[in-house]
Amino acid sequence: MIVVMQQGCTQQQVDHVVRLVREMSLADHVIVGTERTVVAVIGDDRFKDRSMLESCAGVDRVVPILAPYKIASRQAKAESTAIGLGGSLGCVAGGKKIAVIAGPCSVEDRGMLLDVAHAVKEAGATALRGGAFKPRTSPYQFQGLGERGLEILAEAREQTGLALVTEIMSIDQVDVVCRYADVLQIGTRNMHNFNLLCAVGKTDKPILLKRGWSATLDEFLLAAEYIINAGNGKVILCERGIRTHEQYVRNTLALAIVPAVKRESHLPIVVDPSQGTGRAYMVPAMCKAAVAAGADGLLIEVHRDPEHAMTDGGQSITCETFAQLMQEIKAVAAAVGREI
Amino acid sequence: MIVVMQQGCTQQQVDHVVRLVREMSLADHVIVGTERTVVAVIGDDRFKDRSMLESCAGVDRVVPILAPYKIASRQAKAESTAIGLGGSLGCVAGGKKIAVIAGPCSVEDRGMLLDVAHAVKEAGATALRGGAFKPRTSPYQFQGLGERGLEILAEAREQTGLALVTEIMSIDQVDVVCRYADVLQIGTRNMHNFNLLCAVGKTDKPILLKRGWSATLDEFLLAAEYIINAGNGKVILCERGIRTHEQYVRNTLALAIVPAVKRESHLPIVVDPSQGTGRAYMVPAMCKAAVAAGADGLLIEVHRDPEHAMTDGGQSITCETFAQLMQEIKAVAAAVGREI
Amino acid sequence: MIVVMQQGCTQQQVDHVVRLVREMSLADHVIVGTERTVVAVIGDDRFKDRSMLESCAGVDRVVPILAPYKIASRQAKAESTAIGLGGSLGCVAGGKKIAVIAGPCSVEDRGMLLDVAHAVKEAGATALRGGAFKPRTSPYQFQGLGERGLEILAEAREQTGLALVTEIMSIDQVDVVCRYADVLQIGTRNMHNFNLLCAVGKTDKPILLKRGWSATLDEFLLAAEYIINAGNGKVILCERGIRTHEQYVRNTLALAIVPAVKRESHLPIVVDPSQGTGRAYMVPAMCKAAVAAGADGLLIEVHRDPEHAMTDGGQSITCETFAQLMQEIKAVAAAVGREI
Amino acid sequence: MIVVMQQGCTQQQVDHVVRLVREMSLADHVIVGTERTVVAVIGDDRFKDRSMLESCAGVDRVVPILAPYKIASRQAKAESTAIGLGGSLGCVAGGKKIAVIAGPCSVEDRGMLLDVAHAVKEAGATALRGGAFKPRTSPYQFQGLGERGLEILAEAREQTGLALVTEIMSIDQVDVVCRYADVLQIGTRNMHNFNLLCAVGKTDKPILLKRGWSATLDEFLLAAEYIINAGNGKVILCERGIRTHEQYVRNTLALAIVPAVKRESHLPIVVDPSQGTGRAYMVPAMCKAAVAAGADGLLIEVHRDPEHAMTDGGQSITCETFAQLMQEIKAVAAAVGREI
Repeated sequence: MIVVMQQGCTQQQVDHVVRLVREMSLADHVIVGTERTVVAVIGDDRFKDRSMLESCAGVDRVVPILAPYKIASRQAKAESTAIGLGGSLGCVAGGKKIAVIAGPCSVEDRGMLLDVAHAVKEAGATALRGGAFKPRTSPYQFQGLGERGLEILAEAREQTGLALVTEIMSIDQVDVVCRYADVLQIGTRNMHNFNLLCAVGKTDKPILLKRGWSATLDEFLLAAEYIINAGNGKVILCERGIRTHEQYVRNTLALAIVPAVKRESHLPIVVDPSQGTGRAYMVPAMCKAAVAAGADGLLIEVHRDPEHAMTDGGQSITCETFAQLMQEIKAVAAAVGREI
Repeated sequence: MIVVMQQGCTQQQVDHVVRLVREMSLADHVIVGTERTVVAVIGDDRFKDRSMLESCAGVDRVVPILAPYKIASRQAKAESTAIGLGGSLGCVAGGKKIAVIAGPCSVEDRGMLLDVAHAVKEAGATALRGGAFKPRTSPYQFQGLGERGLEILAEAREQTGLALVTEIMSIDQVDVVCRYADVLQIGTRNMHNFNLLCAVGKTDKPILLKRGWSATLDEFLLAAEYIINAGNGKVILCERGIRTHEQYVRNTLALAIVPAVKRESHLPIVVDPSQGTGRAYMVPAMCKAAVAAGADGLLIEVHRDPEHAMTDGGQSITCETFAQLMQEIKAVAAAVGREI
Repeated sequence: MIVVMQQGCTQQQVDHVVRLVREMSLADHVIVGTERTVVAVIGDDRFKDRSMLESCAGVDRVVPILAPYKIASRQAKAESTAIGLGGSLGCVAGGKKIAVIAGPCSVEDRGMLLDVAHAVKEAGATALRGGAFKPRTSPYQFQGLGERGLEILAEAREQTGLALVTEIMSIDQVDVVCRYADVLQIGTRNMHNFNLLCAVGKTDKPILLKRGWSATLDEFLLAAEYIINAGNGKVILCERGIRTHEQYVRNTLALAIVPAVKRESHLPIVVDPSQGTGRAYMVPAMCKAAVAAGADGLLIEVHRDPEHAMTDGGQSITCETFAQLMQEIKAVAAAVGREI
Repeated sequence: MIVVMQQGCTQQQVDHVVRLVREMSLADHVIVGTERTVVAVIGDDRFKDRSMLESCAGVDRVVPILAPYKIASRQAKAESTAIGLGGSLGCVAGGKKIAVIAGPCSVEDRGMLLDVAHAVKEAGATALRGGAFKPRTSPYQFQGLGERGLEILAEAREQTGLALVTEIMSIDQVDVVCRYADVLQIGTRNMHNFNLLCAVGKTDKPILLKRGWSATLDEFLLAAEYIINAGNGKVILCERGIRTHEQYVRNTLALAIVPAVKRESHLPIVVDPSQGTGRAYMVPAMCKAAVAAGADGLLIEVHRDPEHAMTDGGQSITCETFAQLMQEIKAVAAAVGREI
């Protein structure tokens, strides 16, 4: 880190900072500029709270130099990581083939779910999404079918071979969800739920980690680091839109995070244009854009009858739209040297 | 809700929306305007997913009319709720007297904590804050002392009479934290952790609920609704800054939420200018501003030696600064008809 | 618009709102719901200040129903507008062929500009960008060559046939810029400079209108409406990133605005991934994503020697990178039924 | 500035950066850390485009150390600047006494304006606000009375002694507005209109500079620097809310900018809670909060009859509310050692 002193700070203040740096077992290097003095701190300060130096008299601010994550970084592992999602169709995130994970927002009933599973498989998807435990903003909204939903999802997997991706909301759900699911999804509201990150880090399932609504790139990769650090290196990042001032969308899909992740980390990244826009009519355009930007996969909400969906009807596309979209995505994937 | 149809929609499309509305056991009222047709939906639609209507052909958008929360609203209870925090000093949030909750970010060691507790009590605080379980962005940062931290906090309470406010991060901590704490704090990263909200809603402790980094006012009050709905009406809201483009602060403290909450809800609201700015030098000004805006309390990070704080040193003020600040806050409180 | 009354409002308050609505020569329709009363206002209220109704006792809020723009809307003109940019290479925004507008951020010297112009033409661009008048955040930064820059740009157009796109910052520059440029660019900082919008609306040049840093979609289209309303229908919208909390980019490129504009307006929309990310390494990925999302054109900063660029070196790509990128864009364009 | 090299960069890449730094007539200082090498650049780099170094191979990012503004900074002038606004009532921004600038959003008619002027004077205001030229988001909204509005404002000043603050939107209005106004207001939409900033910098009138909707603190102070650099040191900063995800307000009033400006700059700062919230009911609370936070003045929209205001009725308070508010503000001002 670099400690930037205030203009007009005293020599004692600089000496005091240097003393604190040495107390931290780090080395210092004082540079006297024409207007400002800075103290460059040498050594791995990731384990230190740099905020404390900000409280010293004469300090203007502290600038971190090292990325706060280590094992999630591209420096730690130069080659990209490919992660198999399970199922019998060879679904992988991070390879040449793009992982298409499709299905309804929630599992609502058995018939509907099986229908959609067969339809998305037919159209070329290799994984099935569907929520059994649902995080809902209001306590009055449908909260999911729980374990019954998981059973239905597992039946769909058996019938289709699709890998099964489903959300886990709480540490007390780890056992039950692991019994059924191939991939555990951590939702956007739980990206900062560190106890949950540690808990899923102790399983051997791939983790689909959604970016928090207002998470920075560093925070996103640190959440991955929590999981990897707990023992589970199979983390698939997922961009699903951020909170901004924009109101014609539910969330602003920040696709530039795809090349950013590719540069900073070895982990695969998939994109969720359904949550990422909140508007069904935008989903096809943004799926194609995500693939063109280099995403390793897509998470797409598909429903047999969006008008009667119990959750997220407004952002779900129909099975027919999905089938056509897959043709279009295939062409874009080929144009950027990928496959579906 | 109001369903706004697209310009040029067909009569069949309007009829279809009307049919769906009736399926939901709600009443409809079609208004044909000069440019747009809208379908006003009559009845309590809080339990419905309005998103499904957005997926209908011919629908432009759906506008909610009713606030999504009920029991947290001012309509449900006209008089303001005052909540005792515990301790022997009569600490209350929501009364004429402003609740001042002060202490270090984390419990680091017994001596330090007891010193700070005595100092803040001396200066006029009536509750003590201090983290035993710490949510940290990085897995490499200090994660708190756990139960040992709770023991130290409880000792401080016994010595001083201060009410004890401490964070709970996970449902498996409910029992242990309830054994020691007077007030359970839900941190900003967990405002959307619905399982945790339900779990603390089943205790009889007052809950200090911090607003999520990017939560809307509706989402904030819905999180309170989760807790109340689970059986615990003692919810104290806490504004602690939101994520914006601003970089001279860690968070943007949105004080206008104080009059907004006073209008929309009967619950008390306190303000945390330490987290809410991230810069110690701003804390005094923003404490005074919060009181002038009508806040029912303050949450202030105070440390004996911020330069050696293990967490959040950059936003902690010293015991001396706190003592002087209390004098200033007292004057502002009097100017707006409140007391410290 | 819909006037939502507060719960518990009186009949007099409703009557008062109705009276005000009629004073505005609009019709009213009162709907008494189970919890709320709303007053639906019928007629074109775009010319009214709906804010005044918000100040009435008993009113909770006012919800607009009509889009605030008219002539920029898809309703006003169902077929998409294609706008020729000039030059001799048939550059059009809004047709099947994608308009590629490339060149340096600023005109710095004649040799450099001519070199880049020939290089981008060779690679397939049909328009040249380059700033002669530069809006700079600091008064100490390079402010552009002024009219001398325009002369150099015009020379490049003569040599290459590229259409010439350049920024205009102030109404006193209209005459001089019109003498040289084919397309007048309104920069992001001036999207709300209404006097300038009206001034360029009185010229017959196509206008490339960049979205403001924090402009909503409605505000963006209203800025276009200002220009069209002043007499000039040739408005090309340009997304160039918005201000958010993200820090790994200079701006967050919000590509979902492309399908949104296609739905709401008949105007073409181009995307600027250079400004839209601020990082050269992201430009290729985001150019491909923009085309896949349906953009009608691209604005790309290209420099012979970005390390010595006087402005925006960090987001400029080299001529070699641009040539290769054009091949990749061509493949993506074909995949979505477009051409370069 | 500090140039942070990528991990694994080569010695040649470091040497190349050093060479470029020396080309810029700056000195370099290479620090080899345990994981990263950084090049500290010594000298005043405010006149350089640091972005160019970001385009070099092996460079990760460039971190500025010096604030980009100079003459607006507290370093350039340690004592706070107090600026007289004119009129005969001794209105000053930056002294012990708080400047209260009140009046309608727009000048609508002579009788109304004179009434409000007398009322706000009576209640203790020392300056009058009112727009004659109005920046409106829609071309269909009321655009102001122009010079006739200025005449009415001047008449009000003569009758009351209030200083006259009014907005200027365009360089061609400089002469006419200077003939009437005491203080020229630059609106939020024009904070980045550099030609206008230079033009008002050549007048001798105090300038009330509103912060742009999404401007950073650095950009805000650089806009002030433009004016000062052009010759006019009388710049009064004005916080008026920023664009965020919040929807219960029109803008998020970021009061922590008050202590930030006090630390970084010698210029006075006033706060506009009317624009800063957009909701009349919040204005009193936020006026008191602004004063408690240390603001040097307030800009308040007051209307005789907000329900019939042609602009901004929803955020205007009545003359009666204003009179009572002034009593409350007086008490808060006294509590923080200020006067009204």
